[in-house]
Amino acid sequence: MSQTKILLDESEIPTHWYNIIADMPNPPAPPLGPDGTPIGPEALAAIFPMSLIEQEVSGQRWIAIPEEVRALYQLWRPTPLYRAHRLEAALSTPAKIYYKHEGVSPGGSHKVNTSIAQAYYNAQAGIKRIATETGAGQWGSAMALAGQMFGLEVRVYMVKVSYEQKPYRRSMMQTWGAEICASPSQQTQVGRTALAADPDSPGSLGLAISEAVEEAASRVDTNYALGSVLNHVLLHQTVIGLEAKKQFEKVGEYPDVIFAPCGGGSNFGGAAFPFFADKAAGKEVRLVAVEPTSCPTLTRGIYAYDFGDSAQLTPMLLMYTLGHDFMPPSIHAGGLRYHGDSALVSQLYHEKLLEAVAVPQLATFAAGVQFARAEGIIPAPESSHAIAACIDEALRCKESGEGKTLFINLSGHGHFDMGAYDSYFSGKLEDFEYPAEAIQVALAHIPKVG
Amino acid sequence: MSQTKILLDESEIPTHWYNIIADMPNPPAPPLGPDGTPIGPEALAAIFPMSLIEQEVSGQRWIAIPEEVRALYQLWRPTPLYRAHRLEAALSTPAKIYYKHEGVSPGGSHKVNTSIAQAYYNAQAGIKRIATETGAGQWGSAMALAGQMFGLEVRVYMVKVSYEQKPYRRSMMQTWGAEICASPSQQTQVGRTALAADPDSPGSLGLAISEAVEEAASRVDTNYALGSVLNHVLLHQTVIGLEAKKQFEKVGEYPDVIFAPCGGGSNFGGAAFPFFADKAAGKEVRLVAVEPTSCPTLTRGIYAYDFGDSAQLTPMLLMYTLGHDFMPPSIHAGGLRYHGDSALVSQLYHEKLLEAVAVPQLATFAAGVQFARAEGIIPAPESSHAIAACIDEALRCKESGEGKTLFINLSGHGHFDMGAYDSYFSGKLEDFEYPAEAIQVALAHIPKVG
Repeated sequence: MSQTKILLDESEIPTHWYNIIADMPNPPAPPLGPDGTPIGPEALAAIFPMSLIEQEVSGQRWIAIPEEVRALYQLWRPTPLYRAHRLEAALSTPAKIYYKHEGVSPGGSHKVNTSIAQAYYNAQAGIKRIATETGAGQWGSAMALAGQMFGLEVRVYMVKVSYEQKPYRRSMMQTWGAEICASPSQQTQVGRTALAADPDSPGSLGLAISEAVEEAASRVDTNYALGSVLNHVLLHQTVIGLEAKKQFEKVGEYPDVIFAPCGGGSNFGGAAFPFFADKAAGKEVRLVAVEPTSCPTLTRGIYAYDFGDSAQLTPMLLMYTLGHDFMPPSIHAGGLRYHGDSALVSQLYHEKLLEAVAVPQLATFAAGVQFARAEGIIPAPESSHAIAACIDEALRCKESGEGKTLFINLSGHGHFDMGAYDSYFSGKLEDFEYPAEAIQVALAHIPKVG
Repeated sequence: MSQTKILLDESEIPTHWYNIIADMPNPPAPPLGPDGTPIGPEALAAIFPMSLIEQEVSGQRWIAIPEEVRALYQLWRPTPLYRAHRLEAALSTPAKIYYKHEGVSPGGSHKVNTSIAQAYYNAQAGIKRIATETGAGQWGSAMALAGQMFGLEVRVYMVKVSYEQKPYRRSMMQTWGAEICASPSQQTQVGRTALAADPDSPGSLGLAISEAVEEAASRVDTNYALGSVLNHVLLHQTVIGLEAKKQFEKVGEYPDVIFAPCGGGSNFGGAAFPFFADKAAGKEVRLVAVEPTSCPTLTRGIYAYDFGDSAQLTPMLLMYTLGHDFMPPSIHAGGLRYHGDSALVSQLYHEKLLEAVAVPQLATFAAGVQFARAEGIIPAPESSHAIAACIDEALRCKESGEGKTLFINLSGHGHFDMGAYDSYFSGKLEDFEYPAEAIQVALAHIPKVG
């Protein structure tokens, strides 16, 4: 039998995270405050512990992973690297396809790689509570688990429409001991104002972020936590790519092309950045961020300073953005809905060191189903974006006869996304390409700075 | 860092299944036909391939696992054995707690260990289609996946009330290419008769079994597959216990007590039987089957010949049964609803070689939540039965100061059971002990044979 899973021992969990800032050709553009001037670390101290703020701005290449965090990573890490023998056979491709399965974590996705680290540093700093937001529930679940592990109370502002439509994610967070508030809520000024204006407001991610940030900023015992976009979040996710490199070494391979889904950038950064280190040193490797055509941040957005949330409470980041007012269409079921992207991913993409491709919704689900029928694992729709792009490349290899080595970051399993699969099977999903005019309208609200 | 997961290499996937019949003090009681006389293998040939029928009656201790089956086991096996450091700490127990995590399979439970094998043998026999039934959807999913892997069409008769209430499990089966019919259906005589009597019939597992068996018996290209109870099903599941034995060896441990959930017996048999081999050779090890107080087959049922389905289409097995008419109360959310038990488990329990304990529903969910908060993994409610019994034992160890080694078979994750967790958190679940009078009524219908 040929090898299917390349496993690592627990002792091979990385001891350090990889900080890409050390290898970037240009220093990252600084975040800006509301007045358009660069903000310093101290501006973030009301809602983040100093250790995470230091990671956010550090230029050090390797940052040690605390033993307490590595001990918790042991609950699911190292994750297996799979050789997709059956998918290769189904495609009749000479390409070799590998995928890293982050769905084996307790929450079913890669998100816990950073929530565990964030909970640890907050607990170390004497923080007792975390306020955060969640849309579909993936990040809220990851933070609930992490808080439970370090004895932190966690309050999750969950977008009201999801709170009502996704009781299962809510129950998952409750199982791990978190308190969940439908947002807008009576807990914050922002929430009360929104409810006064519209008692039936379905909520939005932007509003939920605002509620969590308001609570964190106004309580000394409470901090805020974010699941993507920021430098320290991407840093924590590099355990994915670092493990994958070791696993490829074990089988004497090296990927020619890496495909990872890209929303806020934490999954893509986590998988691709450790390989960027080799690329910076002259190695040939293509790093492809895959996004939906219905939220085409990198492929259709502009590179500009913009807010991270619709309420304009966050600092501004220089990033690819569709405008902080941007809302993906309601027919979009496949995740990756954020209007902007990580500043690090954006800058490297702007400098043409990364690639990006957008995949339509139906092709995404078709790829997910094809993958499930070959490999057994049902992928999260986010992951299916990367799978779709990889299948396209594998079919190009079939035409050209090239035996390339392709690597997919399978960010999570799809067991909580069967509703979206159900919509796909029943013909309710449609493709949607965001119209250029609509993007122009959203972009018109971008602040004129930087 | 102390070791959390004990992993095996793919080359250590067992090469043979363990057949407990070789080590039983008495030969298994034969199945009986409708006339009350023992049936031979040929009576089953209309719905099972001969290779599985041979396994059903074989007395050979070791049965080789085909390479094609082992190759597919590689998609998730060997499964990790965990040391529950954090649960031990939460309980302040001197006991060492280990659990085998079968939830890492593509379907999220142990069921695929046998569905893959059954699909293989049917495909080998030239069978093109499998008809089977499913209640909540776990077995139907496992069979859908396995059929896809061996190019078999799979039709799943899904109890209508589940079909309507659990669209996600249905979508999962569709993702793997199965056809799903709400049962009762127009596809079979049994179904049409039921619909004629009551067009709004919610269906039942017994009826769904009858539809699947009718279809398999009436079509040459189609066979039937069952997810528990039968000897060959338990045989396939022994990969769980065989791997666990190797894993315990690697850390120089041996379990004093093994806890596994017990419904039809495949999960319990899979985990416990390989250790029974040592017990038969004089080793001290306790094997504890854990069942719900609301469906207390072993602890409250009688040992008698009974049918496997309510429609009385199957052969009769000598087993612990609550009567083939038995229906667990509708408030029961935790799985393990089958009225009978595996004939092998029943006989060994009758001979006092195994133990059984029943756990109330609320204690089951409380144990599941305690486990999730300590270990991260959210267990399936079935698995939580074993966890609850193990926690009780660990607390007894705390009182007595005994450092026993305890082993839980974690049959699956609970990501598809969050609705039941939701009912638990919202106070909708209740304990229910099946009243002795009601059991007497059901038992009155047991055939007078054997």
